[in-house]
Amino acid sequence: MTRFYVAEFLGTALLLISVVGSGIMAENLAGGNVALALLANAIATGCMLYAIITTLGPVSGAHFNPAVTLAFLIRREIPLPRAGFYVLCQITGGILGVWACHAMFDLPILQLSTTARTGSSQWFSEAIATFGLLFVIFGGLRSRPDAVPALVALYITGAYWFTSSTSFANPAVTIARGLSDTFAGIDPAHIAMFVLVQLGAAAIATPALKWLFRTEAVE
Amino acid sequence: MTRFYVAEFLGTALLLISVVGSGIMAENLAGGNVALALLANAIATGCMLYAIITTLGPVSGAHFNPAVTLAFLIRREIPLPRAGFYVLCQITGGILGVWACHAMFDLPILQLSTTARTGSSQWFSEAIATFGLLFVIFGGLRSRPDAVPALVALYITGAYWFTSSTSFANPAVTIARGLSDTFAGIDPAHIAMFVLVQLGAAAIATPALKWLFRTEAVE
Amino acid sequence: MTRFYVAEFLGTALLLISVVGSGIMAENLAGGNVALALLANAIATGCMLYAIITTLGPVSGAHFNPAVTLAFLIRREIPLPRAGFYVLCQITGGILGVWACHAMFDLPILQLSTTARTGSSQWFSEAIATFGLLFVIFGGLRSRPDAVPALVALYITGAYWFTSSTSFANPAVTIARGLSDTFAGIDPAHIAMFVLVQLGAAAIATPALKWLFRTEAVE
Amino acid sequence: MTRFYVAEFLGTALLLISVVGSGIMAENLAGGNVALALLANAIATGCMLYAIITTLGPVSGAHFNPAVTLAFLIRREIPLPRAGFYVLCQITGGILGVWACHAMFDLPILQLSTTARTGSSQWFSEAIATFGLLFVIFGGLRSRPDAVPALVALYITGAYWFTSSTSFANPAVTIARGLSDTFAGIDPAHIAMFVLVQLGAAAIATPALKWLFRTEAVE
Repeated sequence: MTRFYVAEFLGTALLLISVVGSGIMAENLAGGNVALALLANAIATGCMLYAIITTLGPVSGAHFNPAVTLAFLIRREIPLPRAGFYVLCQITGGILGVWACHAMFDLPILQLSTTARTGSSQWFSEAIATFGLLFVIFGGLRSRPDAVPALVALYITGAYWFTSSTSFANPAVTIARGLSDTFAGIDPAHIAMFVLVQLGAAAIATPALKWLFRTEAVE
Repeated sequence: MTRFYVAEFLGTALLLISVVGSGIMAENLAGGNVALALLANAIATGCMLYAIITTLGPVSGAHFNPAVTLAFLIRREIPLPRAGFYVLCQITGGILGVWACHAMFDLPILQLSTTARTGSSQWFSEAIATFGLLFVIFGGLRSRPDAVPALVALYITGAYWFTSSTSFANPAVTIARGLSDTFAGIDPAHIAMFVLVQLGAAAIATPALKWLFRTEAVE
Repeated sequence: MTRFYVAEFLGTALLLISVVGSGIMAENLAGGNVALALLANAIATGCMLYAIITTLGPVSGAHFNPAVTLAFLIRREIPLPRAGFYVLCQITGGILGVWACHAMFDLPILQLSTTARTGSSQWFSEAIATFGLLFVIFGGLRSRPDAVPALVALYITGAYWFTSSTSFANPAVTIARGLSDTFAGIDPAHIAMFVLVQLGAAAIATPALKWLFRTEAVE
Repeated sequence: MTRFYVAEFLGTALLLISVVGSGIMAENLAGGNVALALLANAIATGCMLYAIITTLGPVSGAHFNPAVTLAFLIRREIPLPRAGFYVLCQITGGILGVWACHAMFDLPILQLSTTARTGSSQWFSEAIATFGLLFVIFGGLRSRPDAVPALVALYITGAYWFTSSTSFANPAVTIARGLSDTFAGIDPAHIAMFVLVQLGAAAIATPALKWLFRTEAVE
């Protein structure tokens, strides 16, 4: 019964380990070459996304993202109480993942980021990024469900590069990254707008994608 | 009924977001290391191609490319009026995608590229690139249709590197890239020859590939 | 009958060839750019993992790792004598792989590493890395067995980046890497703690993962 | 009837375009960063291998390599005359591919490489590389035939890095690369030993792999 909550907690923790951990390693090694650091960061994140969605998909649905849970809620495919607990597990799991990274890299556990990520261009980026994420999830669920792990993994790997915000696209990830003053961090003062845009984009994208990917025959 | 036009419009917009957006990000971060910038550009483009072809394939066939639509027209697998609207959606979608990139990276929306891409070597590259693209599409449709998204994505990721033009291989992409004075741009004066070569290569390749990949038994 | 021992020996030899060989090549070419060297190292390792698990999986189960064999032993899915011989083949195969690398790169065959890899942060990294490896193996075996080669390959490619130890996660690999004073080496004095943590993490993770991925229906 | 000869010719031409073309581009852009050049070279080659094996596999078997054709001949899975014509098509196709690259990059068509690639370490590398290639082909054909394109592509991408010769592993590729004085070239005087080692390794590996991957039940 409670296994799917454990899955959401653990999966989001592992996701943050890949995002924040690879950012720390990349910054340590890249000697100021930010493009190379971002490439490693993007590849490591994509690898982990493939792993956690493939393995935990059958357990919890593999949301790991309150914006995704919101979309399933709007589609009435998850009951409200369960959605609420999912979000709680995602946020706490994400934070634990960040702290585990700090322990693995011998850094102070408790940190607050000082990396500014704000402004209308970045907010617009987050809207596009979140739309794109739900686009590949619901498009993939319709056309080829077994490809969803690869779709999300590759989409996010690419989206690190084609959005100015590097595509957080996930409120739990955004909050957790506020707690790490490393490569992947975001100033806590800038979290609220990111989360607002992500949830707003999810709310608007969900019915549009339902129309685009409805299952009636096309031709 | 109109969903497949939306799919061609949206898919081509997302394709250009990946091509132009990742080019901007890569140039911003790479500090003059063009090889690293092109690597990120190629990977991000491949990721998005996999995403849009997998998800939108069942909706519109996932052309996103007037040269591909022309090939299907020559094979009489798409009616002429629908082909015409596809091309219209591809071109307008591509342009919108470029403008969305500019907004995401806080650049002036309206631009014209000043990057020269011309000369017989580059035109020959575009002919090879377009032939190769149709080769993987029609070869994949015959041998393993579910591999077509990966085939196109990987082929283009590689083709960025093994052609001197970096493989536009797509008239809608070529036109849209004329409107961005960034890493992926092409001087508008050089668009016509690229498009001509792409369409010419498609016209010649289509019957040759039909012979190569005909479905009668081989052994 | 003895084929599965040959498979464990050969597979682990090929794994070490990819890990140590690509490390040597990368260090030779990267000119001090450690991030680039690690990227090549991680990609080459992932490629080989996909190859050996796909091809040798049906022959021996494709463990190539005493921690994995221990997990199957705890699950009572491999008899103890066979597990013992597996570990023997893995360790000797790994050592032979390292020596083959030295021959390929014209280096002295017999070496001892002088690279320090020690401290609680690295040990914690190895615990997380080994847990994650077993997580993708047993999660994949439950949800999509044909994806296990890709899961392990991508997980390890990512884990090079998100752990401070670069994720050895394998006692046979750890021992063999002690015998190479190159990019991938580990000071022999630091092997014991790595192996202890890897086996300890496997012992703890196995029952936890059995619960998480048990096969009863979920909803 | 003759389609499979066209397939071997065209596939090998495309393979060389990816190997030599991406080498030229990478060297042009990398500004002396050889590791980055090799990374692009390896990725582009892997992408093309996936494309040509997936699409042409059902047409000709997708050998593109005299060492592979020799292995099938030893296994009596291809008649001798057809094997001879395959090799002829592979060699001529490879050469045409190299010349097409030179045209695409505006270089003199006819060249001879001056890159030394010789010595027992490199020959040993070629033996290992060729063994590994046949290992993934025949292992994949036994365990998961639909994975063979990915197996070969990923194996070669990795093998660029874990052998000192960068894994030619293919006599047709070796001969063709002798005709390009660019990144991927090999001094014509050094071709014979590479080819000899590749064919010798194939002759020895084939029966060993037949034993390892025989199809009787294992457990």
